[in-house]
Amino acid sequence: MPRSSDARTRFVDTAAGLFRRHGYHGVGLSQIISVSGAPKGSFYHHFPGGKEELAEHTVRHAGAVIAKAIDEAFLEAASFAEGARALADRIADWFEASEWSDGCPITSIVLDTTPTSERILQATQEVFEGWLVRAAGHAERLGAEGDPRTTATRLLVALEGAWIVARVQRSREPFAQAAALVAEA
Amino acid sequence: MPRSSDARTRFVDTAAGLFRRHGYHGVGLSQIISVSGAPKGSFYHHFPGGKEELAEHTVRHAGAVIAKAIDEAFLEAASFAEGARALADRIADWFEASEWSDGCPITSIVLDTTPTSERILQATQEVFEGWLVRAAGHAERLGAEGDPRTTATRLLVALEGAWIVARVQRSREPFAQAAALVAEA
Repeated sequence: MPRSSDARTRFVDTAAGLFRRHGYHGVGLSQIISVSGAPKGSFYHHFPGGKEELAEHTVRHAGAVIAKAIDEAFLEAASFAEGARALADRIADWFEASEWSDGCPITSIVLDTTPTSERILQATQEVFEGWLVRAAGHAERLGAEGDPRTTATRLLVALEGAWIVARVQRSREPFAQAAALVAEA
Repeated sequence: MPRSSDARTRFVDTAAGLFRRHGYHGVGLSQIISVSGAPKGSFYHHFPGGKEELAEHTVRHAGAVIAKAIDEAFLEAASFAEGARALADRIADWFEASEWSDGCPITSIVLDTTPTSERILQATQEVFEGWLVRAAGHAERLGAEGDPRTTATRLLVALEGAWIVARVQRSREPFAQAAALVAEA
């Protein structure tokens, strides 16, 4: 049996994996607990707010994973366009490896719960804002043309759109187009 | 009681409205039938394949609505960039009027059901392909720079992304950025 400190992580990792494939409402709490392998009795200790609180933490966890990917892509890049391509490539790699199933976990949750859940919406707004501030910082540092905040918003719009179109087309091409859009705008 | 020919339309319209707010799995068939006001007994006559078949027809219906909007935006435009702005504005108008609740009905369905439902995935692929062919035709006719198919893919990527980011930010700004991306690329 996993340690209690592991249980929380297992619940969040399992939820992220299931929500991104089936959406928030497509997965039951009992399924998440069962797949996680963590002790059932510990769930409400970690998440007294139930499935909604778990989803909020899943959004924040996924937000941190993508934030790290943003930094890694841009810190090694010689230009914002090069960083955008590296980020788009990395997400496309993840997505292709999952056979086009592991969409943006945040999108999958937010589309099912907004505006019903104020709690999840607020977490998503904070995560998106964190990404934008981070990407705008890289845009400024790398001397991208135009307003850094606008450049960052365009990157977010293009990558979220690519993640959807790629899921339908089962192809990396939309990510290549997202990177090209950002590079050429 | 509505006529039988109305019942089919009512089921599809109701499903489109509910799926785009709550996702495919967030809405039960009994709720759709009840909200539609159409005779319960007629449901399986129109949709022997149940909720999955209803979702397939909802995807195709929403696809036709957007296809019409694409044509209307580009037929009045003097350039592809102007048409892209008109289309982005129109979707933003619809979305703002719904208080940022009525997301892309196709995205809401497809993210919850892909790759589980081959039937819904295939309908979505056909709808996206129809939009791309249509938008590429306008790009070619209006003399847009670059390969028309690539231009059309970029428009789709940008608009789908804007629809998600706008839902979280509760703002028209992502649509303006999507149009600018396509115009400037």
